Amino acid sequence: MAPMNSSFRLILIAVIFGAMQPRAAAAQGVPGAAMYPGQIEMERALDERSSAENLRRWMRDLTREVHHAGSPGSRKNAEYVAERFREWGYDVEIEVYHVLLPTPKERLVEMVYPERLRLRLEEPAIEEDASSGRREGMLPPYNAYSADGDVEAELVYVNQGLPPDYEELRRRGISVEGKIVIARYGGSWRGIKPKVAAENGAIATILYSDPRDDGYFQGDVYPEGAWRMGMGVQRGSVSDMPTFPGDPLTPFVGAVRDAKRLKVEEAPTIMKIPVLPISYDEALPLLAALGGPVAPARFRGALPITYHLGPGPARVRVKLAFNWDIVPAYNVIARLEGSEFPDEWVMRGNHRDAWAFGANDPISGMVATMEEARILGELAREGHRPRRTVVVASWDAEEPGLLGSTEWVEHHADELREKLVAYINTDGTGRGYLGMGGSHSLEVMINDIARDVADPRAGGASLLDRVRARNEAQQGLKHGGAAGPNADIPISPLGSGSDYTPFLQHLGISVLNLGFGGEGGGGSYHSAYDTFEHYTRFIDPDFVYSATLPKVTGRVTLRLAMADVLPFRFSPLVDRIETYLGEIESMADTMREETARQNALIESGAYDLSADPLEPLLPPQAQEDVPYFPFAPIRNALTELRVAASAADRAVQRAVSEPANGSGGAGASGAGASRAALERTNKALYTVERAMTDMEGLPRRPWFRHQIYAPGFYTGYGVKTLPGVREAIEERKWQEAHEEIEDLAATLRRMARALEDVTAAVQQEAAQ
Amino acid sequence: MAPMNSSFRLILIAVIFGAMQPRAAAAQGVPGAAMYPGQIEMERALDERSSAENLRRWMRDLTREVHHAGSPGSRKNAEYVAERFREWGYDVEIEVYHVLLPTPKERLVEMVYPERLRLRLEEPAIEEDASSGRREGMLPPYNAYSADGDVEAELVYVNQGLPPDYEELRRRGISVEGKIVIARYGGSWRGIKPKVAAENGAIATILYSDPRDDGYFQGDVYPEGAWRMGMGVQRGSVSDMPTFPGDPLTPFVGAVRDAKRLKVEEAPTIMKIPVLPISYDEALPLLAALGGPVAPARFRGALPITYHLGPGPARVRVKLAFNWDIVPAYNVIARLEGSEFPDEWVMRGNHRDAWAFGANDPISGMVATMEEARILGELAREGHRPRRTVVVASWDAEEPGLLGSTEWVEHHADELREKLVAYINTDGTGRGYLGMGGSHSLEVMINDIARDVADPRAGGASLLDRVRARNEAQQGLKHGGAAGPNADIPISPLGSGSDYTPFLQHLGISVLNLGFGGEGGGGSYHSAYDTFEHYTRFIDPDFVYSATLPKVTGRVTLRLAMADVLPFRFSPLVDRIETYLGEIESMADTMREETARQNALIESGAYDLSADPLEPLLPPQAQEDVPYFPFAPIRNALTELRVAASAADRAVQRAVSEPANGSGGAGASGAGASRAALERTNKALYTVERAMTDMEGLPRRPWFRHQIYAPGFYTGYGVKTLPGVREAIEERKWQEAHEEIEDLAATLRRMARALEDVTAAVQQEAAQ
Repeated sequence: MAPMNSSFRLILIAVIFGAMQPRAAAAQGVPGAAMYPGQIEMERALDERSSAENLRRWMRDLTREVHHAGSPGSRKNAEYVAERFREWGYDVEIEVYHVLLPTPKERLVEMVYPERLRLRLEEPAIEEDASSGRREGMLPPYNAYSADGDVEAELVYVNQGLPPDYEELRRRGISVEGKIVIARYGGSWRGIKPKVAAENGAIATILYSDPRDDGYFQGDVYPEGAWRMGMGVQRGSVSDMPTFPGDPLTPFVGAVRDAKRLKVEEAPTIMKIPVLPISYDEALPLLAALGGPVAPARFRGALPITYHLGPGPARVRVKLAFNWDIVPAYNVIARLEGSEFPDEWVMRGNHRDAWAFGANDPISGMVATMEEARILGELAREGHRPRRTVVVASWDAEEPGLLGSTEWVEHHADELREKLVAYINTDGTGRGYLGMGGSHSLEVMINDIARDVADPRAGGASLLDRVRARNEAQQGLKHGGAAGPNADIPISPLGSGSDYTPFLQHLGISVLNLGFGGEGGGGSYHSAYDTFEHYTRFIDPDFVYSATLPKVTGRVTLRLAMADVLPFRFSPLVDRIETYLGEIESMADTMREETARQNALIESGAYDLSADPLEPLLPPQAQEDVPYFPFAPIRNALTELRVAASAADRAVQRAVSEPANGSGGAGASGAGASRAALERTNKALYTVERAMTDMEGLPRRPWFRHQIYAPGFYTGYGVKTLPGVREAIEERKWQEAHEEIEDLAATLRRMARALEDVTAAVQQEAAQ
Repeated sequence: MAPMNSSFRLILIAVIFGAMQPRAAAAQGVPGAAMYPGQIEMERALDERSSAENLRRWMRDLTREVHHAGSPGSRKNAEYVAERFREWGYDVEIEVYHVLLPTPKERLVEMVYPERLRLRLEEPAIEEDASSGRREGMLPPYNAYSADGDVEAELVYVNQGLPPDYEELRRRGISVEGKIVIARYGGSWRGIKPKVAAENGAIATILYSDPRDDGYFQGDVYPEGAWRMGMGVQRGSVSDMPTFPGDPLTPFVGAVRDAKRLKVEEAPTIMKIPVLPISYDEALPLLAALGGPVAPARFRGALPITYHLGPGPARVRVKLAFNWDIVPAYNVIARLEGSEFPDEWVMRGNHRDAWAFGANDPISGMVATMEEARILGELAREGHRPRRTVVVASWDAEEPGLLGSTEWVEHHADELREKLVAYINTDGTGRGYLGMGGSHSLEVMINDIARDVADPRAGGASLLDRVRARNEAQQGLKHGGAAGPNADIPISPLGSGSDYTPFLQHLGISVLNLGFGGEGGGGSYHSAYDTFEHYTRFIDPDFVYSATLPKVTGRVTLRLAMADVLPFRFSPLVDRIETYLGEIESMADTMREETARQNALIESGAYDLSADPLEPLLPPQAQEDVPYFPFAPIRNALTELRVAASAADRAVQRAVSEPANGSGGAGASGAGASRAALERTNKALYTVERAMTDMEGLPRRPWFRHQIYAPGFYTGYGVKTLPGVREAIEERKWQEAHEEIEDLAATLRRMARALEDVTAAVQQEAAQ
């Protein structure tokens, strides 16, 4: 088509001459989606129709009974959700996977010395919260994928149970070999704690929520306030998720009924020692009975005792036995077929399973996802059907380790790699500021959306205004952390911790993870008190933030589903990678200086000499000097990447700013050639993220293939950017660091090639 | 004398040609005292004769009964100490001052709402500490110079009760006008807290020791460990010491019997509202009964509650009445007349009064002072009489506000200004690292001594080695905070808090303040549990550090008493002043940037926008922009001062390195002219500190005359260096800052002139 050709010629010229359009000009209106005439109307519909009353009703319904994976409640809720989606015009399937989910058969923690004290290990019902009294089928507090075991030993307090904590213990002459350790939650993902304890020779781990982090120190406790009460316990998985998430028996493949399975005893991600979480009321007598050195200041919590390290004199018995059952996980998958590009999918998801009632985690996000889907269904019926296929997932078995999503992603990997434009995750939502995490290629889009949606309580200010104000006023960041007063705010890179993980980390699919939080506080996490009562009293009482979430995620879905040219932008990604590389370079410098300094002090005897002669403290262990690393290949590849990203962004920007006449419009299907060209362009765009993966994966954990983002091996959920290089240096594996530098440079060059493909696709389309 | 002339000619040449001797060369041996042949022998005597057994016996004797100022025990102990000094050959006088010392007549703190609870306000006797049961004559917990009063009001928790805390309250809409405030100890000197409370309209202040700062969070509590137990209370003065210390009724003059006195109601340093300290066991129910907003994180202590701010609903009644008595304070003043320079005095001192038994504070320092005096007395009898007069003071009434020393200094001001070479203070001592505070002109000397004395537990390492090792290994300072691995470690500038204050701050006499600490912990401070039992169990069980203190302070006394040319060095002083000026310059820059940033955020609405709509938080108050200050006059004066200090140090160094034959030697009295010349040189040296004072004093507190060091107006004890300029800027008094910059430049030029006098005196001596 001639008009299209001429407009694409202009783009070509712009690309060749390097003319750079300021993005702000295009950001007015709806960037990346300006072509679809009904776009503004559809987005207005999100604002007008999102109903707090719906959210409240569905939350009430979905939290009436416990609904962990494998429970009758889970199935009932799956059917409830499926039924709603069908009512709204979606094609719905309940896809079932058969996953290993141990549940407690026996739980015993008993102090046997200096006095005998058997812990209750239960969360009591409280009068002010009727839900907390409905115990039918409720899993008691436990850590999924703990080992079975019956052990008795002296107790050692290990703070958060991370490697630097064990170094402090070593300096005080304390080994946990053959001991039971007690660790407080916090500082890293819970599954890291027993893993590190086992690496250090401990035979069991007790986890507890210290009131310093998650109790009265933070604020009034339930039911007076939102925070964790004395008998509240945090349940949660302790499978070795940084190795791989999902069903421990079926890594890399979907856990369909007849999938080939590992034996339980072979499964590498099942914890090697028994682990159980307890409350701070029950941790108190155990910690109070410890002797030995006084714990270092940073180990101390808010219990009214002097924290000691042990070992002993307290001796503890831990006896745990589980039913190692295979249970069905019900993923509800609802589809709204695209009118023009049915083989390009935009996917939304939120999990549905909870440890108990899960009003906040995950139902608040589930019902917001449903409200978005309801409105999109309505719009479709009214004639605004999405041009691309919208898929909405209600995942099961997220809590034990992202099982529902991971098995589904593994099962459908080939199709997803081909078709999936992006996956947009939510996972519960509260009130406060919009949290924006995800792939940096979607940073421009989500900033634009956060600019377009009003905060429900801030008198007309946008969501982005509030994030910027928070970053400036509370965190002291310049321009809210952005390059200028109106510039986009960098979004957070993602590690793990929710269902975006298999999409991003395993397949290289661009993701966003969105939700409100930061106000109201809360300590109901993974307890029997995460109830409708708690949520409506403390978290988002009138559902105004929950009802704002569909306006945000709905815009994301719509802009991705309706745009001619997908709203990916890559220059911010290059900026962020450069920042991350800078962090690694200065980390290496700091480590080098600090290692040299510390080795010199060890050598000079300063540690020995400064130690209190009456309270011996060993010096730190001398460490190998930190070499200088050859970062130049990464810098060179980054330069290539920046050139390619700028060119691609300019090409795409022009395509958006000066669209061809025939390629869009409501119901317009365009000429065959034009649609094929758009499909080529868009596929080039949405598969750039694939180029960030490496099929060999990260060292020692091949399931994790993304080379820009990964959950940290010792942070569990917390992200490590440029993980190969960063973790090799952090873990002092110098040879590996050299190899990973080469690999990262190769990844960046691969990304540059993918971006050149984008530019070429645009040019090819223009040349038609 | 010819030899002397010729040696001084060499110095003159060195000075003229700017030849700089490295100090390290002279530091071998005994710098500044190399002339006295018996010096090394005398110092060895300190090492050999200092007896832990003496310390233990005297501490036992001096802590048998309570001995606060005005008590029978104080008089008894004064006589005990005086008798010992007489035995050791000193001329002893007990100088009596008549000072205002209020003691409690009635103390009542009662919660009247939401429940009625009358506090005990007593420290119980405990079985494990027999001393704690001896209550005869013991003052109960109270704050000296609290106002009388009987008030009832709602309670407000104000954290540490400092100005930034009230700003946090204001942002949460909380005023303390007409309220009773409860503040935890810490962050500043206690007397600041009720002062600031009264400035903000509060009608009474309750102080308490939070276990976070001074209780179980820090370590095991008494009697299991050294730390403050639940019912332990910190007594202490709350007179407005940053205005002037000493007897509140006799500022500027000694409180002799017939001194002219202010009326109690006119005395400006008596607190305007009632104040009482309580224990954390008794603070708990009061704090737990507060409502209102949750306290900001930095307000929260270690009690097992959610800290709230109030006001109320808790209502409290505070009723206090005191006996406003004039009591006698007994300063024991012991003299050992100098054999050659009797009108040049070297003074040592430690207070003797305690709030109860005071084993650690102050008796541990008092008995070390006695042991030093005993050995010096012995040496004198053996023929090594000090060449200058040694004066040793055992002060009374330090605890209520440095009354004994201040009145004595005010009384003898003219003579002290003429004759006093330096005052060396101790005030209790523990175990660990040598704390070195004082006039920077004595920094070289005390570093040399800390190099010469072995740590009693560190296998032959010196005291300085241990300080350096601590600074490097625990505080991460390069070279222990010094310019190089063997360089001197900067000593701490002094504010207030012990008896050096009137000497340094009021008269401009060079001082040092010395003692061991930093290991063993402790929470007996100003409680009934600061007993012989506590000290010998936890603080310095075998008195090895206490018995090391005389080796340090004895060397100081001897080097000052025996040297031909006094061991003052001024270049380090100039370095430190330059550092302090740099701090002020960058503080001004930081304030300027922070003010601009904050004002911009207020203007943009970022504070309002980022606040939780359900938990309102007002923005900070806009503040006047911070101007640029004309620091150039100070920089120029500092350049002059550096030249003068270098010249003086070189001149003195040469005089020490190549002494004239006739001017020293045991018992050698030198020729008349030579002695007079030495006296001129030494007087020029020891009066350089006088040039740092300004008889007009600091703004709003004329008693404080020192222009380089002062206690902070809002830190109380904590030092503010270059206080005129620093505090004017901190308190945002721009006009005053300009004036103080001029005044400081004038002080520095005055110091330069004084140092030129030193050089001239040396040259004049050389020219004789």
